[in-house]
Amino acid sequence: MKPTLPQSALDQLFLAAHTAQGFQAESVPDATLHALYDLLKWGPTSMNCQPARYVFVRSAEAKERLRPALSPGNVAKTMAAPVSVIVATDTHFFDHLPEQFPAYDARPMFAGNAALAQETGMRNGSLQGAYLIIAARALGLDCGPMSGFNAASVDAAFFPDCRYRSNFLVNLGVADPAAGYPRGPRLDFGTAAQIL
Amino acid sequence: MKPTLPQSALDQLFLAAHTAQGFQAESVPDATLHALYDLLKWGPTSMNCQPARYVFVRSAEAKERLRPALSPGNVAKTMAAPVSVIVATDTHFFDHLPEQFPAYDARPMFAGNAALAQETGMRNGSLQGAYLIIAARALGLDCGPMSGFNAASVDAAFFPDCRYRSNFLVNLGVADPAAGYPRGPRLDFGTAAQIL
Repeated sequence: MKPTLPQSALDQLFLAAHTAQGFQAESVPDATLHALYDLLKWGPTSMNCQPARYVFVRSAEAKERLRPALSPGNVAKTMAAPVSVIVATDTHFFDHLPEQFPAYDARPMFAGNAALAQETGMRNGSLQGAYLIIAARALGLDCGPMSGFNAASVDAAFFPDCRYRSNFLVNLGVADPAAGYPRGPRLDFGTAAQIL
Repeated sequence: MKPTLPQSALDQLFLAAHTAQGFQAESVPDATLHALYDLLKWGPTSMNCQPARYVFVRSAEAKERLRPALSPGNVAKTMAAPVSVIVATDTHFFDHLPEQFPAYDARPMFAGNAALAQETGMRNGSLQGAYLIIAARALGLDCGPMSGFNAASVDAAFFPDCRYRSNFLVNLGVADPAAGYPRGPRLDFGTAAQIL
């Protein structure tokens, strides 16, 4: 059996990690974003379907395109974050299956069933959004994930051909320890889990 | 800025991790399942909504209840896995918001909007499914996540009051290195990501 990771790693990934509400000015270079993708991409998805798409919004011009879609409480921190990631779902993820899942031709199973494609895209695209959060923490970055935005506005501004749909946003950078709320409680084991 | 985790940790979490198709006989005790929950529970969800529920199916009796719902290709490996987790979503997750998200009363926002509750439950419940996978790997366990099962059958067998809905399954244990497929490829950065 492989070992449990060192306590410092468990702290950085989960136990002491905390949603960032503000960031230091330090920028996030291209090389870090490539390293982030090269880590998170190995997280598992069903049939290796990999429906998530990541738009790293970093330039002032792209941030301004994002601004009108943000909920009021998320504007200032998102405009100031070094990078804001739009985690989106490719509604035609199944076009990549013949190459990504060579075991058999799984494309028709999704191309002919819009409900299954939508559900599979949402489930696995969300898994891949979590992989982004955890992989960023593994690289020493802090994350501020958010659902407070107008998805239709983001999609109109960034995905005019309607193939991708925004799922959620994640601000990325090095947290300003002065900006943050106390961490919320968590459900106890007996409420969230059972052993049968 | 926090450090990047050691290479051995990145390997264990992402780079060398691989979906397990078979497991060694070694059992997974209660203490490990509690440790797993106590790690994964700290992963972020929107408004701290924590919609995922985890049913650790470990006894022979509970495995037999699961068996008829499994796709044929998933029966043998799931019946033999030390534990199979039903990652489910609590459709009434918002009943816990007053206690888990004390900032303001967010319950009515979901209680009065079934579509928003469904989407929020699915997105965040899937994030929490990914936290389970990564937290298990952090504890040295191997995972075999699966979508190949009949969700209605699982729900009828395990959630007769219809409050929880199954999302996906994860076999857990210590992998048998002899049982496994070669790992699939991954989309390149330019297909899955862009920097704006």
